Amino acid sequence: MKKGLFLTIEGGEGAGKTTLIEGVVLALRAQGRNVMMTREPGGIPIAEQIRNVILDTANTSMDARTEALLYAAARRQHLVEKVLPALAQGDVVICDRFVDSSLAYQGYARGLGIEEVWSINQFAIEGFMPQLTIWMDISAEAGIARINATSGREINRLDLESMAFHEKVREGYRKLMAADPDRIVRVDAEQTQENVLNDVIAIINRRF
Amino acid sequence: MKKGLFLTIEGGEGAGKTTLIEGVVLALRAQGRNVMMTREPGGIPIAEQIRNVILDTANTSMDARTEALLYAAARRQHLVEKVLPALAQGDVVICDRFVDSSLAYQGYARGLGIEEVWSINQFAIEGFMPQLTIWMDISAEAGIARINATSGREINRLDLESMAFHEKVREGYRKLMAADPDRIVRVDAEQTQENVLNDVIAIINRRF
Repeated sequence: MKKGLFLTIEGGEGAGKTTLIEGVVLALRAQGRNVMMTREPGGIPIAEQIRNVILDTANTSMDARTEALLYAAARRQHLVEKVLPALAQGDVVICDRFVDSSLAYQGYARGLGIEEVWSINQFAIEGFMPQLTIWMDISAEAGIARINATSGREINRLDLESMAFHEKVREGYRKLMAADPDRIVRVDAEQTQENVLNDVIAIINRRF
Repeated sequence: MKKGLFLTIEGGEGAGKTTLIEGVVLALRAQGRNVMMTREPGGIPIAEQIRNVILDTANTSMDARTEALLYAAARRQHLVEKVLPALAQGDVVICDRFVDSSLAYQGYARGLGIEEVWSINQFAIEGFMPQLTIWMDISAEAGIARINATSGREINRLDLESMAFHEKVREGYRKLMAADPDRIVRVDAEQTQENVLNDVIAIINRRF
């Protein structure tokens, strides 16, 4: 059985993940690799249905633990239906956010506890972690400035959270990297897009 | 703060839980207690939405772990919005199925592992376990015979599972009781309805 590479891209709002991923996909394809870019819920109907429950603005009474369990459920289904089949046929899979987002946002910044959120995600992913995770690190100030300057994409609930929350998320990612330095590599996302892309391609090529 | 009593009723299909619960509610009310009877998702809109995803017959590709996470999410929301407030005002809460159903059905009978399913449910309930759980024990043969004899209620997917599966569920409940004999009390559900009810009322009165 062929085996692909599983990369995830993480970071706070305004870090430039989307632009980076487009560049990485082009660069890896130019190297002759089969690349699948995805993000949860990734067009998987069951995961989309779960996502709709999470994002339904009528659901103001949703408990933080309910939300964390729903994210883990959508993650599981997306992994099983989309990520694992692509890896099985030898693709490079690049996923925009994965487990670390739940750990940084819900586990750390929202205070549910990294260990606790990790436990339900372990159930969801059965140890299937990315071989490499790029953490696009940006200060809360710079991230929010970029979001406000960007037109053409909807501002979502998380965007509107306070600067303090953004800094808390960043601190969460810092802790995750400290705990798993072989997997998580920090990139300075306040550089130019070109420099960020060059850094990331270099990291990927060194690694594989 | 007043504190109520949290009772759960468990058992395989055809064990007669619904009839029993009606009788228990009447008997406890006759003793002057405030009783709330509920079952997940219990009319809680978020939990209902989650339940709809689980039961959507189009979702044939649903992974067993996705399903277990969704049950835990619905449980969390129902607990927070309905069970805990009733207990806080001193009610007796009787819940038709709770954590043990996930452990017996998904953890044991479907093979996900009791420990693993327990871990995500611990996250969901934060240690909030019933003070007493009645396990309505019935053989697979007797349970299925009752279901087939019953008109007026829809046969669901679980009803159609094999006898072997029903016996597996029963074995699961047996293991759960062995692990937590102070909380889980077995009742012989093959007796007449009247005798079952008398047994259960006696257990409840002895306990509280």
